[in-house]
Amino acid sequence: MDAAEFRRRGKEMVDLIADYLENIEQRPVYPDVEPGYLRSLIPEEAPEEPDTYEDVVKDIERVIMPGVTHWHSPYFYAYFPTANSFPAMLADMLSGAIGCIGFSWAASPACTELETVMMDWLGKMLKLPEDFIAGTHGQGGGVIQGTASEATLVALLAARSRAVRMILASDPQRPETGITSKLVAYSSDQFCATLGTTPSCAFDHITELGPICNAEKIWMHIDAAYAGSSFICPEFRPLLNGIEFADSFNFNPHKWLLVNFDCSTMWVRKRSDLIGAFKMDPLYLKHDHQESGRYFYTDNSLFRSLKMWFVFRMYGLKGLQDYIRKHVELAKEFESLVRADQRFEISADVVLGLVCFRLKGSNEVNETLLKRINNGRKIHLVPCQLSGQFVLRFAVCARTTESRHIREAWRLITQLAEEVMQELPH
Amino acid sequence: MDAAEFRRRGKEMVDLIADYLENIEQRPVYPDVEPGYLRSLIPEEAPEEPDTYEDVVKDIERVIMPGVTHWHSPYFYAYFPTANSFPAMLADMLSGAIGCIGFSWAASPACTELETVMMDWLGKMLKLPEDFIAGTHGQGGGVIQGTASEATLVALLAARSRAVRMILASDPQRPETGITSKLVAYSSDQFCATLGTTPSCAFDHITELGPICNAEKIWMHIDAAYAGSSFICPEFRPLLNGIEFADSFNFNPHKWLLVNFDCSTMWVRKRSDLIGAFKMDPLYLKHDHQESGRYFYTDNSLFRSLKMWFVFRMYGLKGLQDYIRKHVELAKEFESLVRADQRFEISADVVLGLVCFRLKGSNEVNETLLKRINNGRKIHLVPCQLSGQFVLRFAVCARTTESRHIREAWRLITQLAEEVMQELPH
Repeated sequence: MDAAEFRRRGKEMVDLIADYLENIEQRPVYPDVEPGYLRSLIPEEAPEEPDTYEDVVKDIERVIMPGVTHWHSPYFYAYFPTANSFPAMLADMLSGAIGCIGFSWAASPACTELETVMMDWLGKMLKLPEDFIAGTHGQGGGVIQGTASEATLVALLAARSRAVRMILASDPQRPETGITSKLVAYSSDQFCATLGTTPSCAFDHITELGPICNAEKIWMHIDAAYAGSSFICPEFRPLLNGIEFADSFNFNPHKWLLVNFDCSTMWVRKRSDLIGAFKMDPLYLKHDHQESGRYFYTDNSLFRSLKMWFVFRMYGLKGLQDYIRKHVELAKEFESLVRADQRFEISADVVLGLVCFRLKGSNEVNETLLKRINNGRKIHLVPCQLSGQFVLRFAVCARTTESRHIREAWRLITQLAEEVMQELPH
Repeated sequence: MDAAEFRRRGKEMVDLIADYLENIEQRPVYPDVEPGYLRSLIPEEAPEEPDTYEDVVKDIERVIMPGVTHWHSPYFYAYFPTANSFPAMLADMLSGAIGCIGFSWAASPACTELETVMMDWLGKMLKLPEDFIAGTHGQGGGVIQGTASEATLVALLAARSRAVRMILASDPQRPETGITSKLVAYSSDQFCATLGTTPSCAFDHITELGPICNAEKIWMHIDAAYAGSSFICPEFRPLLNGIEFADSFNFNPHKWLLVNFDCSTMWVRKRSDLIGAFKMDPLYLKHDHQESGRYFYTDNSLFRSLKMWFVFRMYGLKGLQDYIRKHVELAKEFESLVRADQRFEISADVVLGLVCFRLKGSNEVNETLLKRINNGRKIHLVPCQLSGQFVLRFAVCARTTESRHIREAWRLITQLAEEVMQELPH
């Protein structure tokens, strides 16, 4: 395929994508396939000679779509959202074409530089403490990771490296070997200090944890993977209070800020903590601007900041705030519907876009209800366990979810609940 | 931006991308900017109200392009290639629109399933031992990682987990704590067993290392990040001999097999070694097909297999082999040019698409030559160090590199070499 054919096929693909997303709510949100379904639909080996593009495109509906869980259907309420917006898709197309690998400043200066500035933009949108903003002379700043888990690993390694340095500084005679095996990492059963846990969107008390960490010189990493996006709204920013005690902070714009996966944003108070922990200097990565160009440790792989830039500019801060607020309102609407029905109860505070709820009754009746809901394939939810109780999670996810989808979901849930309650003791 | 506007803007972006790639060789391959160049070109904060799309697009040439190192220019000979093809870009567009997160089979069955089958296709293209093919009943198989480093980390953790299980099985009374701090990982100065190192594309003797690892029950991981793509050609497949001793194997189709970043393919002999090491089962990830749907450990995040599928089908095995062979021939052509010039020497065997060469003379004269080459911005190379010598690396990288680009590059190199040799003692 040459550039001329790409012009044609690319435009067809744009239409295919627009068609898919415009009509997504007509598809069953959860696929009706069994493990192994796909293998029998395609050859066992790659073709020797090229297939036609027409055949490849036909196979999208024949092979792929029957097995897709449609995360961007307005009837998808499972897990947490994953972002999907047109400006981000356009930026990703461009990023793919430029196709640079940013493992050093010189490997693609625009890649490193736009990332640093976009992380400042986003840090300012969240009103992070000045220490976390790179600016032209700051010691802190932000870097994009693939996932919140990756950010946690990076924080853990940086913390370990800092702890070793501190121990050696206080006792220069001490041999370096053996120190790391004595180090301790503290976590809850959700790991590090978390703002908005996955099961129920619960918040750790970081204003209490923080001063202890600081007094004991413990590296404090805060993970707000889902909830972080909401902090761009002044009314939700208090949830981030305590950030002033943190050494590193992370959240995922690829969850709830309209920036397509992957884009997990991590800030540190001192960039040198990361650079020191990950320094790697083979000759083939050295360049003339070695020191001044070292914004960060060298992992700005893709041009991921392009999609932040497109999204922030095409929505504006106000547009992004409106988007967060709309989802929170939809969750509140669903909460009201649940509260108005005596057969149900709310299982955790509804703070943002997640509602944890259950039928008053046994775990069994709730498990059966959930199974019935998902087997209907019209809406999709996943459960969580809270204090031993089986709980249903209703997360507002898709960009296009509206009040009518929420009401339709509730209608389906109550209808199935009636069936289940007639069949089972509760 | 709604779907209707995306139809329009998406098509404009397709043309912008085609224009960029068709005319890329007219751009200086290496940018002429200083660290910090970008910050002054854009506002310090995200806009409150949306910018127009026209303004965003205008800024691609004003802000981004001046700072881009053009990895897909036929004059780019630095590092190793990173893949870029039109079929992969089309697949990535679709992947972005579907935007599923495949952290379990149920989260998007098509995502997990296509990945498993594509890894079989590719494994068969490489003629991997049967053990590494999943098929319908195999115990091994493949999974996509982001980078070869990620694959190495995964292999290391799986190896650790297997070693602990083996130790506990042989001595069930032994307390589990403290075992891991006694474990040892062996590596060379390029880390694990490597087929095609980054500095000079050198090959470890895995037929010698392998039997020792097997006899001592040491997990053997083989990294062929760059070279691996060539093993689809029968004439290069012998370079992979010894794979029968390996527990895990990895290479990067995103380097040299026309599948855009990121797509680092990893195979293991026993899937259970990975599943055991990474098992994570919160309630919200459980589903009805929990066991039969567990193809692998749960990290099939993006729909990365789509781009493998598009590329393998649109090129066919023959097209991919032709592509590899063309790059190797171009490297051989460059090698001949170097060998025909008495002032230069070849510094390492030219096995695939990389030529390591230098001016006979001091490191200083070679460093000066490289600086002069890169400051010219017409072609781009990076150096390596081999046995204390400063060596220039010439890697055939872009999809569109032809003989005329190689000859033009050599003309420039010899012209600058003459200048340098007149100025400096050598």
